Amino acid sequence: MELPSKILQEAVEQLATLPGVGKRSALRYALHLLGRDEQAVRDMSEALVRLKTELHHCRYCHNLSDTEVCPICSSEKRQKGLVCVVENVQDVMAIENTQQYRGLYHVLGGVISPIDGIGVQDIEIASLLRRVETGDPAPVEEVIIALPTTMEGDTTGYYIHRQLQPTGVKVTTLARGVAVGDSLNYTDEITLGRSIAHRIPFEG
Amino acid sequence: MELPSKILQEAVEQLATLPGVGKRSALRYALHLLGRDEQAVRDMSEALVRLKTELHHCRYCHNLSDTEVCPICSSEKRQKGLVCVVENVQDVMAIENTQQYRGLYHVLGGVISPIDGIGVQDIEIASLLRRVETGDPAPVEEVIIALPTTMEGDTTGYYIHRQLQPTGVKVTTLARGVAVGDSLNYTDEITLGRSIAHRIPFEG
Repeated sequence: MELPSKILQEAVEQLATLPGVGKRSALRYALHLLGRDEQAVRDMSEALVRLKTELHHCRYCHNLSDTEVCPICSSEKRQKGLVCVVENVQDVMAIENTQQYRGLYHVLGGVISPIDGIGVQDIEIASLLRRVETGDPAPVEEVIIALPTTMEGDTTGYYIHRQLQPTGVKVTTLARGVAVGDSLNYTDEITLGRSIAHRIPFEG
Repeated sequence: MELPSKILQEAVEQLATLPGVGKRSALRYALHLLGRDEQAVRDMSEALVRLKTELHHCRYCHNLSDTEVCPICSSEKRQKGLVCVVENVQDVMAIENTQQYRGLYHVLGGVISPIDGIGVQDIEIASLLRRVETGDPAPVEEVIIALPTTMEGDTTGYYIHRQLQPTGVKVTTLARGVAVGDSLNYTDEITLGRSIAHRIPFEG
């Protein structure tokens, strides 16, 4: 695609670095921005820079936060003894959206993945251990491992479990089973097998 | 969707103003930007602002340009007597991509549309007439109307044709017909009808 202007070209190339955005969408975005007034474009541009310069990670759970301690960690209404370990910020949002969890979180910022060069030191495992050992900001009674059921997720969960064993803290993980609304013949064998192995009392 | 941070929220809302981008994609873009280094985000942000502050419209054809006169209007290799009238900048790119047109352009920046409040004064019709009447930057021999075949496009084309009549300049329009590679039974009736009415000599 030949663009009539270098300035437009550069804006398109920058926008095309966003995930899932090709040159054609990027051009559409750029021409849309051209049609808006200058202040609106400046506002957007500043909001993006503020993302990098002003956004913090909570010093306890490493979730994104505008403040040093995030609203969840500083809330009086949460069960401080419960810590749910997740891979990333989106997972926190997904669990918060269920409105069924009232404990705290611990965002690892990734999972152990030797192929991608992500080791134990690169994610927030040491800070989780410290949190359990020191009881800062609150004594931890239970750690819920809520990592993806991939090789990397399982490895990370297993590693965390092993590291936490000496502290004596209770370690649990998410129930795996047939999704609500799914029929059995569309459920994959591994999930169906686990849901039989981990069957639960019938609630009449 | 409840976001953990106002700064993130604002960036997501700004990104969601782009055409076809919802809250979910906007969050994906924002989290992607968070993962990049600060300079990369600043570069993108500056490229967007430069779009509004540094990009010009060519003084003759109103195409986007980094300079006062665009590369097409200032090229020595183009047929200066030929002016193709299009609705917008994307249309110029589409025609340039065919590599079959060597004349100049005139970008109206829209078509007459009373419903959207776009009248004759809001688009570059007067400057087209001036171009034909004064022969600045070059004497115009033929004006090719290449507007969309919508009510608004047809109205605009008709209006321009009427305005140009006194000048005696040749006015042509794009051939309409069955698209190359299309079979007849998938072509809409209006197109097929026009392609029969405007049939051309068989080239053996």
